[in-house]
Amino acid sequence: MNTYSPVRVGVAGASGYSGVELLRLLSRHPGARIVAAMGSPGAEPRHIPALRRVWDAPVNGLDLDVLAESTDAVFLALPDHAAAEVAPPLVARGKRVFDLSGAFRLRDAGLRKRWYPKTQDSTQPVVYGLTEHNRDLLKDSTLVACAGCYPTAAIMALKPLLTAGLLQTTAPIIIDAKSGVSGAGKTPTERTHFSECHGSLSAYGVFEHRHAVEIEQELGTAVTFVPHLLPIDRGILETIYARLVPGADDAAVGAALQAAYAGSPFVRLTGKDLPEIKHVAHTNFCDIGWRVHEPTRQLVLISCIDNLVKGAAGQAVQNFNVAFGFDEGLGLN
Amino acid sequence: MNTYSPVRVGVAGASGYSGVELLRLLSRHPGARIVAAMGSPGAEPRHIPALRRVWDAPVNGLDLDVLAESTDAVFLALPDHAAAEVAPPLVARGKRVFDLSGAFRLRDAGLRKRWYPKTQDSTQPVVYGLTEHNRDLLKDSTLVACAGCYPTAAIMALKPLLTAGLLQTTAPIIIDAKSGVSGAGKTPTERTHFSECHGSLSAYGVFEHRHAVEIEQELGTAVTFVPHLLPIDRGILETIYARLVPGADDAAVGAALQAAYAGSPFVRLTGKDLPEIKHVAHTNFCDIGWRVHEPTRQLVLISCIDNLVKGAAGQAVQNFNVAFGFDEGLGLN
Amino acid sequence: MNTYSPVRVGVAGASGYSGVELLRLLSRHPGARIVAAMGSPGAEPRHIPALRRVWDAPVNGLDLDVLAESTDAVFLALPDHAAAEVAPPLVARGKRVFDLSGAFRLRDAGLRKRWYPKTQDSTQPVVYGLTEHNRDLLKDSTLVACAGCYPTAAIMALKPLLTAGLLQTTAPIIIDAKSGVSGAGKTPTERTHFSECHGSLSAYGVFEHRHAVEIEQELGTAVTFVPHLLPIDRGILETIYARLVPGADDAAVGAALQAAYAGSPFVRLTGKDLPEIKHVAHTNFCDIGWRVHEPTRQLVLISCIDNLVKGAAGQAVQNFNVAFGFDEGLGLN
Amino acid sequence: MNTYSPVRVGVAGASGYSGVELLRLLSRHPGARIVAAMGSPGAEPRHIPALRRVWDAPVNGLDLDVLAESTDAVFLALPDHAAAEVAPPLVARGKRVFDLSGAFRLRDAGLRKRWYPKTQDSTQPVVYGLTEHNRDLLKDSTLVACAGCYPTAAIMALKPLLTAGLLQTTAPIIIDAKSGVSGAGKTPTERTHFSECHGSLSAYGVFEHRHAVEIEQELGTAVTFVPHLLPIDRGILETIYARLVPGADDAAVGAALQAAYAGSPFVRLTGKDLPEIKHVAHTNFCDIGWRVHEPTRQLVLISCIDNLVKGAAGQAVQNFNVAFGFDEGLGLN
Repeated sequence: MNTYSPVRVGVAGASGYSGVELLRLLSRHPGARIVAAMGSPGAEPRHIPALRRVWDAPVNGLDLDVLAESTDAVFLALPDHAAAEVAPPLVARGKRVFDLSGAFRLRDAGLRKRWYPKTQDSTQPVVYGLTEHNRDLLKDSTLVACAGCYPTAAIMALKPLLTAGLLQTTAPIIIDAKSGVSGAGKTPTERTHFSECHGSLSAYGVFEHRHAVEIEQELGTAVTFVPHLLPIDRGILETIYARLVPGADDAAVGAALQAAYAGSPFVRLTGKDLPEIKHVAHTNFCDIGWRVHEPTRQLVLISCIDNLVKGAAGQAVQNFNVAFGFDEGLGLN
Repeated sequence: MNTYSPVRVGVAGASGYSGVELLRLLSRHPGARIVAAMGSPGAEPRHIPALRRVWDAPVNGLDLDVLAESTDAVFLALPDHAAAEVAPPLVARGKRVFDLSGAFRLRDAGLRKRWYPKTQDSTQPVVYGLTEHNRDLLKDSTLVACAGCYPTAAIMALKPLLTAGLLQTTAPIIIDAKSGVSGAGKTPTERTHFSECHGSLSAYGVFEHRHAVEIEQELGTAVTFVPHLLPIDRGILETIYARLVPGADDAAVGAALQAAYAGSPFVRLTGKDLPEIKHVAHTNFCDIGWRVHEPTRQLVLISCIDNLVKGAAGQAVQNFNVAFGFDEGLGLN
Repeated sequence: MNTYSPVRVGVAGASGYSGVELLRLLSRHPGARIVAAMGSPGAEPRHIPALRRVWDAPVNGLDLDVLAESTDAVFLALPDHAAAEVAPPLVARGKRVFDLSGAFRLRDAGLRKRWYPKTQDSTQPVVYGLTEHNRDLLKDSTLVACAGCYPTAAIMALKPLLTAGLLQTTAPIIIDAKSGVSGAGKTPTERTHFSECHGSLSAYGVFEHRHAVEIEQELGTAVTFVPHLLPIDRGILETIYARLVPGADDAAVGAALQAAYAGSPFVRLTGKDLPEIKHVAHTNFCDIGWRVHEPTRQLVLISCIDNLVKGAAGQAVQNFNVAFGFDEGLGLN
Repeated sequence: MNTYSPVRVGVAGASGYSGVELLRLLSRHPGARIVAAMGSPGAEPRHIPALRRVWDAPVNGLDLDVLAESTDAVFLALPDHAAAEVAPPLVARGKRVFDLSGAFRLRDAGLRKRWYPKTQDSTQPVVYGLTEHNRDLLKDSTLVACAGCYPTAAIMALKPLLTAGLLQTTAPIIIDAKSGVSGAGKTPTERTHFSECHGSLSAYGVFEHRHAVEIEQELGTAVTFVPHLLPIDRGILETIYARLVPGADDAAVGAALQAAYAGSPFVRLTGKDLPEIKHVAHTNFCDIGWRVHEPTRQLVLISCIDNLVKGAAGQAVQNFNVAFGFDEGLGLN
């Protein structure tokens, strides 16, 4: 593919939070041309007020045929079960699909059935879309299961350290995760009511969150994962606790992370200056900082992303860039 | 009635925001004993987590007979149409009713039909429950239509000045009102989704809000009323613009307000030190401050309340206190 | 000037909120190259964590000579008195200066002395930098006094209507303005303490805010201006009340605004769908909506901007674009 | 002491957040009469706007003699070093002192010197003021070092389980703590600026927070403690990770907590329904919930308090009640 010859892209699920973010990013992307923006099937055409002058066309009801006929690539920001239905026929018609849902992330059929019961089995070859760790596979991908928001922050911080053998896996790895409310999606619920969240904080899904399973799949080790709902709109901060193996220290942690992300434009290693959500909001960056208590070799990692960008739309575009041979950061800066 | 002989009270609509506030206040009220806490008809029994150890009984489904048989007085924190149905039979059975909805506030049948189309006509004698301005009527009331949240803040500031003849009524009186999201009720909607409100501000209902009609009824003059949805949980601040008549000045404004509220424990006149929502949150106070631009006689009034207390549950209890001969502030301090 | 030949720019006051926003915008601006980023005189070199990988050089102490020697244009995001000192010598040395402070905005010497007492008189020719209304003057400008944040939102909404003779100027024009806390600057004060703002709202500077004077200068008519501190980081919403002259109506308002902003890429007229801060945050847009109560010809305008972008850094860049012959939106989309 | 004979109390440091909360509570306390409200030495008399009609007297400059002469008991809400200076002479003059600072909490002289270097050594007998765990000692106390906010939430959850031998102490006990900004005090800093906190989250003091030392002193075991600054005004939620010993399970955890807090009116055990900050805000409750992953015996505890009430002023009053023989909950409901 010639550089900068625009790829015709479609967005399904364009009126949710990730979908709007996709439209925002893709409308300015020099290598993409949005030819279809669709919501759920049967949805009335709807304009996105925040995108006036950025993306002025209406978001129409989902029409799989129009989508298949007009596009080269499709971004799916649909609910899991809808994505599970829509992705295979699109791939069968030669479209490259970037799915932001969880429908295709779990490789183990049993786990997938348990945690995504509404999705059917699939024999599609799937690439797990955490860009920094799967660039080679992305180049030839047809169906990309973009990484979940919580897993993105967790795996980015932990995987290089596990690969380098720096972490004790007998001791529990604990991920205390905090997410902005947009991570819960746009459908209004008691949980996402402003008055329930404002001035508050709560944990949920303890030992019962499917993102824990996704993290364990990618890391190959068990984790304790506790998510919390933060009274902010967007952003995730994860505080991760692990023990270093004897002989490992602060410098070894830094070296492993630097080696892993030397060529990664969207990873910022902040060392002892711990990341804050404010610094990554509205960007595709993943900021990672850490501290080590040398006497006990206790490691604390802090990993931050914007859940709608690096945790969803931004990473999907980053995957798209790698898949189509564009510069990885095209349209994301 | 003997002082401090507990009145048996019921709360209908007890699981909404105003209802929970009523339970919180009444459970500690020395002159009341909650004998029934009910939600909507058919609702499953539900405990209120925030009220554990304060009010531990479940909120049951609405049962009009139980309510009528067990209580002396009933607080209604129901939707308008439900309150319109429930109040008359309760009054007919000798209960004193304190209604927090808008069902009975408008006296003009035509306006009532237009702005509360789901409520039926009623021939109940109704007392408008803005305590400070209707103490005498409250004493003999059977059905009290407690004042709306926006109207409370507006009328408290404006009525004494209009009564004293200090305001030009040819010039428009403008009420720029800002409310926390709990004022929109507990039902989740796109409007009340955390991510839609956080970091934002919006106006709504311009020239089309029924609280404007309620304000005009009580003031006897037209107003321009524009409400805004604030990214906070609770509290209302209204910035009110009016012109003083020739000869009137800052001192006259202060004198009229002080005269009106000399015996009112919940009105705090702050003068030039303008009120802030933070100072009234979680209290039954109405704080009123003002500034006058002498050359143009432009008056700016700031009026602040907690919409769930002085704007709803607190004022209902204050009305209850006056109606039953208790000290006006009993259980509210 | 050749298109896209990068202009060498400097930013003084680069570590405040507007300064950081300037660095963010200019670092990606195809027509500018940042050659100097400076804070206050004597400040220690400081990195901006949020800008890692975007702008990695340190912000150094202010050095006027370095600034003058290395740049073609200078953006000043300094306190008023510092800007008043620094701008004239820079202009004298041939630099084009874009000042974001209030130091040069008021043309009347008496008013300037009263409202900006620490600034000295100046004989510099100054262009008032509200881009949409001064494009011609900007082309030949040497010193641009970029419009204040509150004035930008107010003047954008009102000026076309006053010019078209649609507003009664005998009736008071009322501007009820609400701003995010970043508008108060980065210096920590009791007023900007998180716990003082969160969950609250307050009015301040009633009849005593210098932005009222700036608005009156540009509109040529008196206004009543009341600003409020909103519990959000960034964004301004102004609710503006005025009376239409006899014969004017909703359509006339729309026509006047459309005519005024036909060629303005950053003005979005939303008509009856009123603007919200969320829709303009992090953009250079000014969104304007309105409603008219025909019986009384009462007009309500809602005008929204991001105070750090269209109200500060974005507008400064927009002015820079016009001044240097670039496309007005370059680097701002 | 006779029940309800009012104790004459003084509050030093009355204009900070904890001090204002003390005035709010004590002004309504049937067993106390505030006879002195003082700020720092030399402070100008200052009224507390939020407390008008609740506590109308001014907060004066600190005067140790007046304080000693007029009171029976003194609450200190001063900075650590000031409390360290003021408490001993007050005790020497027969006053019972309730200190909310950290000055007297650490019993080990070395640790105290390291973490509170500005405080002097003291030979005062000190009672650690975590009410539920020290009721007997409080009865005869002269100087009470009220527990810190973070330690309160942590110790309340962990101590009964450690005492019951349910927790592995070889595995690390991890306390991931999140606090509202009022916990950082009222002095404006860059850290507490609204725009730095809003929409963000950050960790701080990793391995370097003196509250970790206080927790370890009271628990007798090492912990990993990471505090975070939440974008809310008040409230603490701590997510605590520990391993159960073989044989221990969910029921054992519940039994140990119930046994420990059977007679404690301010502890609410929520079991699997995890606590939320919203439910404890503005109350003296400590809510504790938990989940156990049986296969790994991983325990997750959630402990919530209002940092200004149970974490400061409320607990000080609770300690006062026990010390003076009042009902433990007097004035706190």
